[in-house]
Amino acid sequence: MIDADIALAHRLADAAGAAIRPYFRARFEIETKDDASPVTQADRAAEAAIRAILEDERPADGIIGEEYGNAREGADRLWVLDPIDGTRSFIAGRPIFGTLIALIEGGVPVLGVIDQPISGERWIGATGHPTLLNGVPASTRACARIADAHLATTGPRLFTDVEKAGFDRLSDAARDTLWGGDCYNYALLASGHLDCVVEGGLKLYDLAALVPVVEGAGGVMRDWQGQPLTRDSDGQVIAVGDAALLDAARSLLIG
Amino acid sequence: MIDADIALAHRLADAAGAAIRPYFRARFEIETKDDASPVTQADRAAEAAIRAILEDERPADGIIGEEYGNAREGADRLWVLDPIDGTRSFIAGRPIFGTLIALIEGGVPVLGVIDQPISGERWIGATGHPTLLNGVPASTRACARIADAHLATTGPRLFTDVEKAGFDRLSDAARDTLWGGDCYNYALLASGHLDCVVEGGLKLYDLAALVPVVEGAGGVMRDWQGQPLTRDSDGQVIAVGDAALLDAARSLLIG
Repeated sequence: MIDADIALAHRLADAAGAAIRPYFRARFEIETKDDASPVTQADRAAEAAIRAILEDERPADGIIGEEYGNAREGADRLWVLDPIDGTRSFIAGRPIFGTLIALIEGGVPVLGVIDQPISGERWIGATGHPTLLNGVPASTRACARIADAHLATTGPRLFTDVEKAGFDRLSDAARDTLWGGDCYNYALLASGHLDCVVEGGLKLYDLAALVPVVEGAGGVMRDWQGQPLTRDSDGQVIAVGDAALLDAARSLLIG
Repeated sequence: MIDADIALAHRLADAAGAAIRPYFRARFEIETKDDASPVTQADRAAEAAIRAILEDERPADGIIGEEYGNAREGADRLWVLDPIDGTRSFIAGRPIFGTLIALIEGGVPVLGVIDQPISGERWIGATGHPTLLNGVPASTRACARIADAHLATTGPRLFTDVEKAGFDRLSDAARDTLWGGDCYNYALLASGHLDCVVEGGLKLYDLAALVPVVEGAGGVMRDWQGQPLTRDSDGQVIAVGDAALLDAARSLLIG
């Protein structure tokens, strides 16, 4: 069953990429949404392209999408879509944004895609399957000490003040901190190039696809309390490549 | 004369890229320098490759390099080298670091290269020439109001506390702020995808190559006091795509 969903997820990502590429570094309208985040024609075209396929091929499944809202959200199987995660990066012409496609069953992410349509990189993870980057298994790296860890987060103002104080404690203890990156940070962690990624304030569509990618590569992804991420999570996330980092990093975050 | 230097700069960037690519997303040693910044074998291999060519073909010119120091630094013509600007980004596997190669004459940058050897993007600017991205003219975009400006900087902790307060004032007034990016932000500004890039604490090798790229594309690059950037600048830089932004942005920065 999951194999059919994986095949479908590839086609969804293909459709999104085809919708996005013509807009990259082209001129387009940028609107500002109620939450002050930007949205472009590319975000909308990509989500519309994905939803058209889902409505045709999975009419009983629910959909939760960043741009076009929810459909059949009471369904057990939910496709969760962020057509462009890292819209600010996309707008600026950086090829490190991503299309996020997740399948949630019973509230738990079981399949996730992080697709970078400009560089042509696609990470896909699914329960019971190793995470693949363009068909090749990806794996996290060992890093058992915070002092050795390369840490990343998207931006300082995406945290509340309390969260930011926790992040600063972790950053002070880590070897290095890299800024920017959105979903691409989690993909690089899955491939063993970063050790810890921390964010706050994520929506379900920002985080659902990341979990199977990170965990299928040998990492662990949790909320700041150490609980698995589900449909009801509060948006605080921590991903580690090496499970041995988790509790020490969480202790610094939550103070 | 500058045409011969431009041709040479291309060959220097080619050599650096060839030295860097085998290390990208491979395993390599990471050392921490006295200023707490990281350095890798790739940084050193790339600078060595550039210097070998310069010593052979421009034996009278001086060299200022991030990794191997200065040679003939009293010369009027100085090649200024940062083999990997954005080493943290390189270490994490992000394809948005850059090789910076500048030629300074009489203390003033007259030629600059920003080369991204993974995506194969090369911006080159020189006095009296339009900035080119892979041979095609690049130009900044119009943006006369701070409220419309897309702003970028590499990281919050690269500023002093006073600088950070200034940056926060500008960020609050701007339309959007993007984090991370190093030299790649200036390249994207030159191509009309960002409106303002601000940093503090830059060394000569971090900034010299950026000036001809930004200015040859129609932008303006200055220190925070509004003065042209020279060999003696203090490391505070602001680049704007539209000259009309400069004074308003500087007023917010310097308070």
